[in-house]
Amino acid sequence: METRDINDAISFSGEKMRKSPIFDSDKLFYDAYCLMPGQEQKVHTHDESDKIYYVLQGAPRFTIANEEQDLGPGTAVIARAGDPHGVRNDTDENAVLLVTMAPRPA
Amino acid sequence: METRDINDAISFSGEKMRKSPIFDSDKLFYDAYCLMPGQEQKVHTHDESDKIYYVLQGAPRFTIANEEQDLGPGTAVIARAGDPHGVRNDTDENAVLLVTMAPRPA
Repeated sequence: METRDINDAISFSGEKMRKSPIFDSDKLFYDAYCLMPGQEQKVHTHDESDKIYYVLQGAPRFTIANEEQDLGPGTAVIARAGDPHGVRNDTDENAVLLVTMAPRPA
Repeated sequence: METRDINDAISFSGEKMRKSPIFDSDKLFYDAYCLMPGQEQKVHTHDESDKIYYVLQGAPRFTIANEEQDLGPGTAVIARAGDPHGVRNDTDENAVLLVTMAPRPA
């Protein structure tokens, strides 16, 4: 059975946000995003794919379709295909997100 | 911004496992599955879609491709397209799963 303890996927890099693949599939991405204070994934857009973030740790600031909001553990947010989206950790604690995107971009 | 507190999606039914949609999309399902003791989703197969379960609460028993395993909070498991899969809560505590499936079946 293909199981993963999410804690094993959590690791941080001083250089930039670390994206750790949890499962590899041709249908979707399923990743942990690990952001130290000051790190971010810049705003970008996927024309064909929806992305859902679920906050596991921390309280990073999300930008989705020109709205900004800080979201904490237990909260999920969707960036639909075509919505510009990004996330920045402006806090002084680490942040961890469980991120699903489908379909997987070609 | 389309946010959801997962706790607001958690609710149980004495009749059967409750599936609470968190986000509705034509590309994927993103649901909370809430299982009281004794409840289950029977083994079934999606020929074209991958499903990923992430355990939020409890320790239900997963069946995937004829393997059985009890999984606890923080663990994710994938049932790939064509893999028979199901989940049963044989414990005496409630179980809650965050479930992603893509592509969304027609």
